[in-house]
Amino acid sequence: MFNEIKSLNEECGIFGIYNSENASQLTYLGLHNLQHRGQEGAGIVSSDGRQLYQHRDRGLLSEAFADPNDLKKLIGDSAIGHVRYSTTGRNSIQNVQPFLYHFLDGDVALAHNGNLVNARSLRNRLEKHGAIFQSDSDTEILIHLIRNHIKDGFIPALKKSLNEVHGGFAFLLLQKDRMIAALDPNGIRPLCIGRLTNGAYVVASETCALDIVQAEFVRDVQPGELIIFDQEGMHIDHFTTQTQLAVCSMEYIYFARPDSIIHGVTVHNARKRMGKLLAQEQPADVDIVIGVPNSSLSAASGYAEELGLPYEMGLVKNQYVARTFIEPTKELRENAVKLKLSAVRGVVQGKKIAVVDDSIVRGTTSKQICRMLKKAGAKEIHLRIASPPFRFPCFYGIDISTRTELIAAHHSVEEMQKILGVDSLRFLSVESLIKAIDIPDAGESPYGGLTVAYFNGQYPTKLDDYEQGYLASLNEQ
Amino acid sequence: MFNEIKSLNEECGIFGIYNSENASQLTYLGLHNLQHRGQEGAGIVSSDGRQLYQHRDRGLLSEAFADPNDLKKLIGDSAIGHVRYSTTGRNSIQNVQPFLYHFLDGDVALAHNGNLVNARSLRNRLEKHGAIFQSDSDTEILIHLIRNHIKDGFIPALKKSLNEVHGGFAFLLLQKDRMIAALDPNGIRPLCIGRLTNGAYVVASETCALDIVQAEFVRDVQPGELIIFDQEGMHIDHFTTQTQLAVCSMEYIYFARPDSIIHGVTVHNARKRMGKLLAQEQPADVDIVIGVPNSSLSAASGYAEELGLPYEMGLVKNQYVARTFIEPTKELRENAVKLKLSAVRGVVQGKKIAVVDDSIVRGTTSKQICRMLKKAGAKEIHLRIASPPFRFPCFYGIDISTRTELIAAHHSVEEMQKILGVDSLRFLSVESLIKAIDIPDAGESPYGGLTVAYFNGQYPTKLDDYEQGYLASLNEQ
Amino acid sequence: MFNEIKSLNEECGIFGIYNSENASQLTYLGLHNLQHRGQEGAGIVSSDGRQLYQHRDRGLLSEAFADPNDLKKLIGDSAIGHVRYSTTGRNSIQNVQPFLYHFLDGDVALAHNGNLVNARSLRNRLEKHGAIFQSDSDTEILIHLIRNHIKDGFIPALKKSLNEVHGGFAFLLLQKDRMIAALDPNGIRPLCIGRLTNGAYVVASETCALDIVQAEFVRDVQPGELIIFDQEGMHIDHFTTQTQLAVCSMEYIYFARPDSIIHGVTVHNARKRMGKLLAQEQPADVDIVIGVPNSSLSAASGYAEELGLPYEMGLVKNQYVARTFIEPTKELRENAVKLKLSAVRGVVQGKKIAVVDDSIVRGTTSKQICRMLKKAGAKEIHLRIASPPFRFPCFYGIDISTRTELIAAHHSVEEMQKILGVDSLRFLSVESLIKAIDIPDAGESPYGGLTVAYFNGQYPTKLDDYEQGYLASLNEQ
Amino acid sequence: MFNEIKSLNEECGIFGIYNSENASQLTYLGLHNLQHRGQEGAGIVSSDGRQLYQHRDRGLLSEAFADPNDLKKLIGDSAIGHVRYSTTGRNSIQNVQPFLYHFLDGDVALAHNGNLVNARSLRNRLEKHGAIFQSDSDTEILIHLIRNHIKDGFIPALKKSLNEVHGGFAFLLLQKDRMIAALDPNGIRPLCIGRLTNGAYVVASETCALDIVQAEFVRDVQPGELIIFDQEGMHIDHFTTQTQLAVCSMEYIYFARPDSIIHGVTVHNARKRMGKLLAQEQPADVDIVIGVPNSSLSAASGYAEELGLPYEMGLVKNQYVARTFIEPTKELRENAVKLKLSAVRGVVQGKKIAVVDDSIVRGTTSKQICRMLKKAGAKEIHLRIASPPFRFPCFYGIDISTRTELIAAHHSVEEMQKILGVDSLRFLSVESLIKAIDIPDAGESPYGGLTVAYFNGQYPTKLDDYEQGYLASLNEQ
Repeated sequence: MFNEIKSLNEECGIFGIYNSENASQLTYLGLHNLQHRGQEGAGIVSSDGRQLYQHRDRGLLSEAFADPNDLKKLIGDSAIGHVRYSTTGRNSIQNVQPFLYHFLDGDVALAHNGNLVNARSLRNRLEKHGAIFQSDSDTEILIHLIRNHIKDGFIPALKKSLNEVHGGFAFLLLQKDRMIAALDPNGIRPLCIGRLTNGAYVVASETCALDIVQAEFVRDVQPGELIIFDQEGMHIDHFTTQTQLAVCSMEYIYFARPDSIIHGVTVHNARKRMGKLLAQEQPADVDIVIGVPNSSLSAASGYAEELGLPYEMGLVKNQYVARTFIEPTKELRENAVKLKLSAVRGVVQGKKIAVVDDSIVRGTTSKQICRMLKKAGAKEIHLRIASPPFRFPCFYGIDISTRTELIAAHHSVEEMQKILGVDSLRFLSVESLIKAIDIPDAGESPYGGLTVAYFNGQYPTKLDDYEQGYLASLNEQ
Repeated sequence: MFNEIKSLNEECGIFGIYNSENASQLTYLGLHNLQHRGQEGAGIVSSDGRQLYQHRDRGLLSEAFADPNDLKKLIGDSAIGHVRYSTTGRNSIQNVQPFLYHFLDGDVALAHNGNLVNARSLRNRLEKHGAIFQSDSDTEILIHLIRNHIKDGFIPALKKSLNEVHGGFAFLLLQKDRMIAALDPNGIRPLCIGRLTNGAYVVASETCALDIVQAEFVRDVQPGELIIFDQEGMHIDHFTTQTQLAVCSMEYIYFARPDSIIHGVTVHNARKRMGKLLAQEQPADVDIVIGVPNSSLSAASGYAEELGLPYEMGLVKNQYVARTFIEPTKELRENAVKLKLSAVRGVVQGKKIAVVDDSIVRGTTSKQICRMLKKAGAKEIHLRIASPPFRFPCFYGIDISTRTELIAAHHSVEEMQKILGVDSLRFLSVESLIKAIDIPDAGESPYGGLTVAYFNGQYPTKLDDYEQGYLASLNEQ
Repeated sequence: MFNEIKSLNEECGIFGIYNSENASQLTYLGLHNLQHRGQEGAGIVSSDGRQLYQHRDRGLLSEAFADPNDLKKLIGDSAIGHVRYSTTGRNSIQNVQPFLYHFLDGDVALAHNGNLVNARSLRNRLEKHGAIFQSDSDTEILIHLIRNHIKDGFIPALKKSLNEVHGGFAFLLLQKDRMIAALDPNGIRPLCIGRLTNGAYVVASETCALDIVQAEFVRDVQPGELIIFDQEGMHIDHFTTQTQLAVCSMEYIYFARPDSIIHGVTVHNARKRMGKLLAQEQPADVDIVIGVPNSSLSAASGYAEELGLPYEMGLVKNQYVARTFIEPTKELRENAVKLKLSAVRGVVQGKKIAVVDDSIVRGTTSKQICRMLKKAGAKEIHLRIASPPFRFPCFYGIDISTRTELIAAHHSVEEMQKILGVDSLRFLSVESLIKAIDIPDAGESPYGGLTVAYFNGQYPTKLDDYEQGYLASLNEQ
Repeated sequence: MFNEIKSLNEECGIFGIYNSENASQLTYLGLHNLQHRGQEGAGIVSSDGRQLYQHRDRGLLSEAFADPNDLKKLIGDSAIGHVRYSTTGRNSIQNVQPFLYHFLDGDVALAHNGNLVNARSLRNRLEKHGAIFQSDSDTEILIHLIRNHIKDGFIPALKKSLNEVHGGFAFLLLQKDRMIAALDPNGIRPLCIGRLTNGAYVVASETCALDIVQAEFVRDVQPGELIIFDQEGMHIDHFTTQTQLAVCSMEYIYFARPDSIIHGVTVHNARKRMGKLLAQEQPADVDIVIGVPNSSLSAASGYAEELGLPYEMGLVKNQYVARTFIEPTKELRENAVKLKLSAVRGVVQGKKIAVVDDSIVRGTTSKQICRMLKKAGAKEIHLRIASPPFRFPCFYGIDISTRTELIAAHHSVEEMQKILGVDSLRFLSVESLIKAIDIPDAGESPYGGLTVAYFNGQYPTKLDDYEQGYLASLNEQ
């Protein structure tokens, strides 16, 4: 969890609540526990049954809502919120969600986690027919599609529109008198429903956001579902029945908080099992095992436990954020990870070490960490990655949409071991990854109900606008 | 480490550098790695050989130096810096250090970590003779004492003054052409010296601050020493020879970063040993062992390892700070720790758990944590504290100077167990604490060169202004 | 001038520059001299020939551009800017202009001064066809109209669109390679063209903005004109020839800066003549003449001069803005004008005074001023208004679109005299107003080329969306 | 009034109120009307009878008190406040007044308007005896002197101290249960007393600050007086009887607001008389008369009236402050006054003009104004200054303490006329200045109770620390 160190970023977290007092305050809390999913912008839109109220700004939740009045102004019993990591769109306030649209026939707010693979072609078509976009975000396309079908009524228009967009998406919509959640046909992004003791329904990207508002877990939103919350309660509907579960495996490996439960699987437990299976597949002859904080600690402790080795704190994370303009020395510029991580000399000196990390993307961070450990006196470094080599881009919301930057796309494990300067480098197999996660309700879905395309190139959807570039990139290497 | 969750606070961290390019930028970095020692104010004073430049403000380092120009203005090759937790003084900018004083005969800057036990009587005496204080801080007393003796010359005046103040103190002073470090006769606060490859000397509260500026550790400052850095290098002098080592044991238990090395002991290793010895003294019949993040994780892993039990992540810390005005529900107001910690249901549900914590001060946090774990389904909770009961106040810089708030001062272990609502509660013994830390150069110093007064009431210094109140409090219970 | 005291507000000022170095800096300067036209938001969009750059924020220009980088980022040789007073739209950043729209076929920026009378019906029609609006501003309608006609090419589409919108409007548009200015068929809002010594063209709401950038006045934009600035220079075109000059008379009376020249008439001179004609029509038997600062000083000095009476400073304006939350006393809450104006006791005590004001809208301010003067010892107050009674709303950009709040719409002069508590009250006649302004190129246009609808109800355009409400209000009194 | 254009600056304004509800809010209002006396810092200290509360910050009052809570925290029934222009001291928050000192025997707050001529020698002496200064301000000296005599009791110590400081000073002190005002033996700075209808006493630099809080004027504080406000009311005492009135004439000429009454003279009236006497002494053969806004408008109207000439608005002041980093062109950099003033072409073109200004200090501004008028078409410019040539520095609080920068100190009127590029230049005589002001209670005091040293070098006090430098400067020319 916590994407500060990795060069791997998720786009967002979403949270909504319908028909509860303190709706916007509870939404703030929910977003607080989803903050690891996006730190570049935050917003909330509330409804008091008559109109919608919006506040959003750049930065962390605590920065975007720095003034107590920001929240107080968001009156009403329903609210949706969003935390954002900026990927394609520029980091301007115009791209911070939830978006709020004023129509003469009523306001609509919209929050989105995911990425659409046919955004560009849809936007092209829409602009040709006079549509005007206010943001760079693909999220805005949905509202334009809805408006194009609006004469059918809002829900039918929404269903039609959801069938026109492709990719991985979890949408939350708020109107003055109802809240709507929708999930793509593969359920690539996680989305769950909870309930407060006062009867109010809550929707969130992860269960850890239910916990902080003391909501009880009800169920995961299923692929293709459209769930409507209104004065009469919760209505489960769907916009398509052509579905097949393919949850993003990176949620388990890296993004989600360890305390979250996705499709029945506690993230920490899945990670610990990844560590154990990695130990079985790729043991190491070392004195101690250490993890890269914070996302790899679960896997590292599993690895140590399986091999009966001491699990030590060989790296310490500085929880405070340093200003990036502070880089006086060449060494530091080349090793910016130093501002975030420190090696514990008294632990690693003179030791043969298994370093467990959750994944390798560009390799830059891993290289810096290993150099740091060597400098602190480590005798040998055996890098163990608790996931398979990350070789193919993600088009569903992770900030890796080309192969160019992926070290594993262009290098063999042997080459990578040399580049990173470690004594050995080993990865978890795709099979063990699937086995470690083990989604109970995966049914007949391939790959145990997971998207493992990053490792094997087998995408659960068509790639649309990305297809050509992707195919070209496969040949380029 | 990292004092966000505990109700136990250290006053400060200090850092200084003499004769290096980028002096103030390196000081910023050093303070970045000392941020866990104080989050309520930060400041730097630099010297360019002719005059001193100051910037200081309330808040975290990144808030106090929000504008890149704040740092750019601090020109020159020497600098001292300070991060502060406000204890006695009010949280006004006037109390943020380093203090800078302009005299017609030259500027002096001053940064301090610790607490003086005769501050009030000294200030009383000084005010009677016309002295005017600009802050509430006891730090300011030193400069008044120096000015009273200034006709003897600065260094003699400083030595005299250091003999007049009592308590635990680490001082850093900066003049236009030299930097001076001084440590109290018992070495209660840690202070170490490092050296850059460019030959510049660095002084810091903890070695983790040397690491980030890539300074090599030279030595700990010893009790009673006065160390002068000037154009000719480092001069080791002393203001008293009546010394006896008594390092604050809470530095090892809770305050210091796990990667810091104090008097030859790596903090993580000491903590892990505390966990192991605790396991030997106070084993528990449980399924899993968990620690309270972040400061108790080392001890918890030691405890688990010693007993051969699974070490799990049963609590997750939210690394983002929530605004405190967000407390919509009664439950949350009573359990504010929820904003910072979450129980991992998938880990603790149905389990008998040993929860390892580093210490118990007021007991409020522990109580909330245990309640949270129970609510998440824990079957039994056996609380294991990796230090002895905290029964006596600290007068040397920890924010606990009365017994009133100390739960262990007023309750037996049995009573505390009941209050906290746990199935069992056990503490480490003082002997094992000393054995776990095991300072190599403690020599003949009692208690292995540690201050363990918090546990046994044996203070290494006279208590002066606090004496009466303390004695009274002993009888009050 | 300067609308701080009056409860009468103009919507905006616009400024543009094409093909000059320092384009955005010069735009800032131009807006600085147009600040009196709008203080609630400011923005600039620049072009470097390839793309457009935007910065905008709420507040005064100096607040919206508080950070030097805000301006530095606006690179390129062309720019348009806007200062805004919020009327219909909410005071959110989304309503701050210039608006910037990204299309796959190129960016367009848009700034507007004025008000459209058929905005609501156009928006209604557009939304029905799927259009989505991001602001509450009527300005946005133009860009939607353009996009609907875009297949004809941009300029033809723009011309068509300008014929679809009705009301008073001055538009500035910026594309990556050209700037376009357009003025409504009655020229209700002022707009002029200047030229720098470097050959660059400048467009501004008032000539005072040409002066500060040292541009030479070229000509006023004429009703119905569409003027295009591109690499080949300035092209004068028109979107309609059905035009008739009807400049807003309030520009001369109150809004414009006294140094501006609108259609050949220096505003100060027009005001001074209003004062002189007022003196001829409505003399007063008084000791001294005073004006209400700042907008009435020209008229007051004309009034005094014509009657050979001493012109005195009986009211002083505090140029600093007080926080509105500072209102401790009842007296002050009822007399908030005290924060802005003070009576000069040493001038008014024991005197019979002619107070010259430019206009009366709600009457609240006038009442407070007169009470203040009485309290300071004035013996008699003879209020002389240098314009006719303001009886009809404005639909072209002044913040008075209903009759409800207009005191003169509901009361005779005698009643108003009693309400205001003055010894006499007299107004300038419409004929004298026209004579005082005396636009040289008015030609055959009725009312000397002025809009005097506020005084006589004769609007130069159809009222469209406002028609019904307006007619109803006429009967309500 | 209003020192934005002049390069002549006053140090401060002070305001105090004793025993009234809303004390700090009323102090804010009072300072609002004194804002023209200082724009670089503002502060208020209040007392609730038990302790003192302080808020102060850099910038305008509205900036220093940007957050409503800043004021709310200043509880209690008494308060003193200060607005500051930074002269000698650096522009750091430490120099912003009122200063607040915490002593074990009670808090004291201190606000000061003026300048001490023996500050440096006093500080030297005090530092030698161990005193530590926190600011660069000479104000702080008074509190050190008081503390040195404190064994005599506070009031005797204060009296002794007031006899040790020399120069021009108006002090306000606040203790928890009383407020004290003191004025130097020559009454160089203005200070007056007012009373609210609730019986509370108010002290302020100018009467315009009494007006805004609706206080009735009681009396001017007289030279050498020490006035104590406590639960029993107002006590008039004095610290010396060796007094002789010598009010700073620049208060009448330039600093004070036109509505203020100082020693019985309304400032606007004095200025108008200066204009009239100037007209008698130095008429001009011109078409129109214009003034430099805002401080010269009174004199200009007097000048016009006396000669029976039209008084016109030839220059317009932009009331909005431009960021100083906006200076794109060379012309603008050389003529920064353009951001603040504009010539009215339609008024001045082709005219012979008398330009009335209140004073000439460096001459830079006058030169730029005249150039601007010529550029706008003025045919002839006859500059008339409504005060005598400013040839000698001020040591009592105006920001002109050396002769170097004074154009009249180094040039004859003929030379200045040439430098400024005007067709004629004339000044008011010292005799006429005194006659125009005409203080009723001046008694036998020389120069009609005024300090006219700036014009004739006859200082009312010894110059102490400035003596040597001043004498040297006289010879240097």
